[in-house]
Amino acid sequence: MVENYVHGYTEKESRRLADQADTLAKLLHHDTRYPAKSRILEAGCGIGAQTVILAKNNPDAQFVSIDLSQDSLHKATTAVTAENITNVTFQPADIFDLPFEPESFDHIFVCFVLEHLQEPADALAHLGRVLKKGGSITVIEGDHGSFYCYPESEEALMAVKCLIDIQAGLKGNSLIGRQLYPLLSKAGFKKITVSPRMVYVDSSKPDLVEGFSKKTFIAMVEGVKAQALTMNLIDAETWNKGIRDLYRATEIDGTFCYTFFKGTALKKI
Amino acid sequence: MVENYVHGYTEKESRRLADQADTLAKLLHHDTRYPAKSRILEAGCGIGAQTVILAKNNPDAQFVSIDLSQDSLHKATTAVTAENITNVTFQPADIFDLPFEPESFDHIFVCFVLEHLQEPADALAHLGRVLKKGGSITVIEGDHGSFYCYPESEEALMAVKCLIDIQAGLKGNSLIGRQLYPLLSKAGFKKITVSPRMVYVDSSKPDLVEGFSKKTFIAMVEGVKAQALTMNLIDAETWNKGIRDLYRATEIDGTFCYTFFKGTALKKI
Repeated sequence: MVENYVHGYTEKESRRLADQADTLAKLLHHDTRYPAKSRILEAGCGIGAQTVILAKNNPDAQFVSIDLSQDSLHKATTAVTAENITNVTFQPADIFDLPFEPESFDHIFVCFVLEHLQEPADALAHLGRVLKKGGSITVIEGDHGSFYCYPESEEALMAVKCLIDIQAGLKGNSLIGRQLYPLLSKAGFKKITVSPRMVYVDSSKPDLVEGFSKKTFIAMVEGVKAQALTMNLIDAETWNKGIRDLYRATEIDGTFCYTFFKGTALKKI
Repeated sequence: MVENYVHGYTEKESRRLADQADTLAKLLHHDTRYPAKSRILEAGCGIGAQTVILAKNNPDAQFVSIDLSQDSLHKATTAVTAENITNVTFQPADIFDLPFEPESFDHIFVCFVLEHLQEPADALAHLGRVLKKGGSITVIEGDHGSFYCYPESEEALMAVKCLIDIQAGLKGNSLIGRQLYPLLSKAGFKKITVSPRMVYVDSSKPDLVEGFSKKTFIAMVEGVKAQALTMNLIDAETWNKGIRDLYRATEIDGTFCYTFFKGTALKKI
């Protein structure tokens, strides 16, 4: 293998991953558009993966992106700086103890955060306090129980169940996507609309096979192997068949399904 | 309860069911449009539920709708006559022994049929023979394995699994939605596109709660109760809890998810 080929492959690979990120970004974020000069709180920005997309999609809005982790905020700052984004301010803060005046934001955005919280409705209620009356909240979450594939495989579902159970053991909830409507309702929001965003993958979509099925979803499941086996959630043979079957569903006649949920709602005037 | 109230309720109920049918019809059929004068084979029309929608959506196209059952064809004829539809001809025929010349149809339409067949790819290949080169085939199927709800319930999934297993025992496949891409490919079609059509129901959509969750999906599951218990697929207590939990998911804080799949493809020129 010559160096040129390797580079070529690497570039192709980068483009492929970028295409996949782009496909998911469009699926999840294409309809999140904020008016110029509006002030938006992004709660739980992590390393800034969504921040970059949000800020680019809304160059005339101002974002305040918070996270508990200083380390994540540092990475997020690096990510937006690399993209020459200037409409984001980062700040360490806790959703349950927000250092902002009541009703000080026009809109709120929360993506892939509630799944990690023990009291997601309570978190939404705290966020609601710093939101102006009539302002919107947008919440995006996945739902690991929405996964299925062809060829169908009980062992594949059992491996995925390990991921769900391990997250539940950490007091999180990876089945939270289906629950956005009641959560937003319980937190007091009005005019709630939840729309599912299904990722359907077959071999006519090689970017998604590689970028979503293999490198996002299966990689995530494989990540809990040691824990799943140590905790005796599954035996090694079943686990290995489950992972093999997940990869089997990425072959030319396989299909892969997963659904994200996006909820939007308003604060009562 | 006075007679007027009863009538009022009945009318409201009819409107509700019509609204639900309309929502599903839009979801599944809105993008099936055929050119004027084109000749389309609808294979396995049953009692004409889809025929009516298709024929109304494409008033200038000509449909030939076939089914094995004379009784179903009689009901289908009554249904289209009631709607003053004149662009459909019904004919008893077997998909595996089609009484038509090769390449005699411009397009083919198959909805909720493959799930009942032991050899679905073979059925598609037979249909392909009577399709003109470059003509399209449209296939719509559900997938009972795509169901999930909130609050999540293992017993509810076990009750649904009975329906899946009983259909499998009848040599059908109620998990066929996810399989449309490989089936169309195996049958030799080209330019295959499969798009999922997810029905997401929460209490902001009372028509779907009533018309889809309760009267379509749960009713379908409840329909196999006697068989499931007789075949010892489930015990009565688990069954009853499963059904209760399905209804629980239709309450004000519940959600309900199910996905249909629509595949379109072309016959190679």
